Amino acid sequence: MTPLIDPAKSKTKTQVWVVENGTKRLRQDQLTTEEPLEIRLTSPSRTVAITMRTPGADFELAAGFLFSEGVINSKQDIHRMSYCTDESIDGEQRYNIINVQLQPGLNPNLQPLERHFYINSACGVCGKASIEALRLRGYAKITSDLAVKSEVIYSLSDQLRSHQGIFSATGGLHAAAVFDAEGKIGNLQEDVGRHNALDKLIGNALLSGDLPFNRHIVMVSGRSSFEILQKSVVAGIPLVCSVSAPSSLAVSVAEEFGITLVGFLRENRFNVYTGWQRIITA
Amino acid sequence: MTPLIDPAKSKTKTQVWVVENGTKRLRQDQLTTEEPLEIRLTSPSRTVAITMRTPGADFELAAGFLFSEGVINSKQDIHRMSYCTDESIDGEQRYNIINVQLQPGLNPNLQPLERHFYINSACGVCGKASIEALRLRGYAKITSDLAVKSEVIYSLSDQLRSHQGIFSATGGLHAAAVFDAEGKIGNLQEDVGRHNALDKLIGNALLSGDLPFNRHIVMVSGRSSFEILQKSVVAGIPLVCSVSAPSSLAVSVAEEFGITLVGFLRENRFNVYTGWQRIITA
Repeated sequence: MTPLIDPAKSKTKTQVWVVENGTKRLRQDQLTTEEPLEIRLTSPSRTVAITMRTPGADFELAAGFLFSEGVINSKQDIHRMSYCTDESIDGEQRYNIINVQLQPGLNPNLQPLERHFYINSACGVCGKASIEALRLRGYAKITSDLAVKSEVIYSLSDQLRSHQGIFSATGGLHAAAVFDAEGKIGNLQEDVGRHNALDKLIGNALLSGDLPFNRHIVMVSGRSSFEILQKSVVAGIPLVCSVSAPSSLAVSVAEEFGITLVGFLRENRFNVYTGWQRIITA
Repeated sequence: MTPLIDPAKSKTKTQVWVVENGTKRLRQDQLTTEEPLEIRLTSPSRTVAITMRTPGADFELAAGFLFSEGVINSKQDIHRMSYCTDESIDGEQRYNIINVQLQPGLNPNLQPLERHFYINSACGVCGKASIEALRLRGYAKITSDLAVKSEVIYSLSDQLRSHQGIFSATGGLHAAAVFDAEGKIGNLQEDVGRHNALDKLIGNALLSGDLPFNRHIVMVSGRSSFEILQKSVVAGIPLVCSVSAPSSLAVSVAEEFGITLVGFLRENRFNVYTGWQRIITA
């Protein structure tokens, strides 16, 4: 596993007063860096997203975002990605803008992006409609016959923690990691935003030809929300685990698209909300 | 303190398989409800936001969002808020759309909303530019002479937890609460999204005439991000605490706008990142 985040960029040094039981002391500390990333298409020339993120694995983030949102369908749809080298843009922000050049002749579907701003009224504004919008993009039930032993599931949260290099230093990062059916970790990505960590993970797999994740387990820190499950549907992930609780809509999406959803995974304990058939207990 | 979230709407019942040490059992469980909320202005007629949120305190969320984003500047700018009663909209989604009628003659500034989609290039894409954008909206350093004893700060995380009714049942909610200088809790709001919980808190205060929060402490669960600090600047909050770590940009915003930023607040321990002068130790 190659860590893709650059420790020099992803952490910021600071001084902090530590107050404990009435005493105080000054300490050197590290913060998780948070900076905006603008993702631009060059043709048609258009900004498709500005997201607050932790610098590192930026190309993976851009690729994963475009794939998760349905703008591209394969690695081949991307001709070239580069940081903005416009002369008028100064050094500090140069690494906050990514230009994505799509394959010439490709007519990208930018309509799904509108979802962020507008769900049209024919579609409605409710959980069901959000699921329906995903189905209209062409995704069907995930049919993977993956089966995983409960002991393997137990091992994931420890692995997530021990591989989270930056987290241990700053305590400020979410993580998403992919594992095989035997619990061997494949890749791990970190970000201030959980959705960004998952986009980095999916983007990394897209660029290295490892998608779909149809024999894999993905684990995220924190909670499972609609957004996490939506991205999982697109990447074809049959088994999604999180450290904390899923939301109601996350469970609905998992049910609808045949994803096994595990929550509250801590040490030798977890909850299975949907897709029980993929979990093997003694 | 009147809890504004409706327990019937904010929780969804489910059945869950609990796997523990190799044994499994089926249990009744509750999920945090996650549904989209569309905020519409009636004149000019326009959708200004669609956000995934936990139903409850929806008017507060709408008011807080419009205020935090700079679309409105006072309670008086809102003439009327109502759920959408369009005949063509069915029951399920009726409570997911809020129509906000602004005061006749008011010319709302919708430009700040563009921030979500686009930061113009003159402004740049970097942390500094994000702070500059906030300054351009007219916000200056918060000058409150609030001073708070460390013992008061210690008490906040316990209070947050014990007042979090829904959290204890589902484990899936973020919270934001406001306290006075003596640590007395004023209001608490919950949501699947931390930024929504803070918007509900600010919206509630806006509607009840309690803004600005310039003699108050606000505490949020989880981490402090740029977005949390940005909303705090708008609401005039001099002291912001969080259970977990702040990001680099959160610290920069706090520094720039004179906010005391406390992180890792757990039991008798916390870190002070900026604005040390407002903390009183023995």
